[in-house]
Amino acid sequence: MFSGGRMYLFRIPEGEEFMSYMHEFLEKEGVETGIVNAIGTLRDPKVGYFLEGEKRYKVIELRGTYEIASLIGNISLKDGRPFLHAHVVLGDSEGRAFGGHLIEGRVLVAEVFVLELKGKRLERKMTEKGLALWP
Amino acid sequence: MFSGGRMYLFRIPEGEEFMSYMHEFLEKEGVETGIVNAIGTLRDPKVGYFLEGEKRYKVIELRGTYEIASLIGNISLKDGRPFLHAHVVLGDSEGRAFGGHLIEGRVLVAEVFVLELKGKRLERKMTEKGLALWP
Amino acid sequence: MFSGGRMYLFRIPEGEEFMSYMHEFLEKEGVETGIVNAIGTLRDPKVGYFLEGEKRYKVIELRGTYEIASLIGNISLKDGRPFLHAHVVLGDSEGRAFGGHLIEGRVLVAEVFVLELKGKRLERKMTEKGLALWP
Repeated sequence: MFSGGRMYLFRIPEGEEFMSYMHEFLEKEGVETGIVNAIGTLRDPKVGYFLEGEKRYKVIELRGTYEIASLIGNISLKDGRPFLHAHVVLGDSEGRAFGGHLIEGRVLVAEVFVLELKGKRLERKMTEKGLALWP
Repeated sequence: MFSGGRMYLFRIPEGEEFMSYMHEFLEKEGVETGIVNAIGTLRDPKVGYFLEGEKRYKVIELRGTYEIASLIGNISLKDGRPFLHAHVVLGDSEGRAFGGHLIEGRVLVAEVFVLELKGKRLERKMTEKGLALWP
Repeated sequence: MFSGGRMYLFRIPEGEEFMSYMHEFLEKEGVETGIVNAIGTLRDPKVGYFLEGEKRYKVIELRGTYEIASLIGNISLKDGRPFLHAHVVLGDSEGRAFGGHLIEGRVLVAEVFVLELKGKRLERKMTEKGLALWP
């Protein structure tokens, strides 16, 4: 069980790569556990689809500008550092939606909420499945 | 109005059925009101689309493994027990997204956040529309 | 940084327009900063896709009834009043998903969670890009 810690609501500047920016932010603030959600617009996002048989993510590269129709993520430790695991739904210019594990995306706009959770240490460890999971 | 209660961030073990596992969890913990979000991967998920004229959900059966690109839900009482109402967006191996009311899905990975809400009793009652709704 | 304020979990009555109802609710309650998520069903929703070159949203009009597979939003001030910025993923009768910036939609069912954030004043200002953004 956890209790609520610090809360953040902020915009990532245009041009930043979403995942890199978030990891720098979490490390700087020392947020080791928490949840994230975001909306906005990304350029050239890459999303992953887990190939269980091959124990790796297939990378789906989307070209152009997509609305972040939804982004939900969680923060825990991996290799001793804050790690964001985020999934995303992206909308194209016709409103069609695409979704999966967010690998990367350049920010046009990203409005991000972070809720820190205080409590036990939550750490990912590599498993036989090829995924870094909580116990 | 509500105030924040207990918070949970955990993984559902592989092989469990998502909705059944969550209902057992909520009942065991005594979480009667709250919100949920989750990401992960589901096998053979079924989603519902409400047919207003027929007062029932059409069941859309998806075959195979899908990323949970988004899962948002709320917890309240139905027939005196904790009830999770969850909607989901699922991504296939090409990144295409599907969405609706989550009926069931077997877990490959599910990372779940639960925030308990404390306050008045929030209870679903069956309505003439064929939906169990809050007052 | 913010701290948690009031929390709400409620249903918007059938027939209301989602965005108008939410803005009236936020103004009446005096919620100036916060986050929102929702699930439910909307009729004839309109979603926007931002056309960067034209500095405006393209409006995508969807006809009929769609599940709100996901709705994530944030609340801040615009022109001195509470303003909800919400993005949505919608599922049709075949489970296909559509997504973007929520412009409007008539409610069949909408179950909404609001978390107020207390702290500094967060205000949108029109930018050269044609978007009202936080500093």
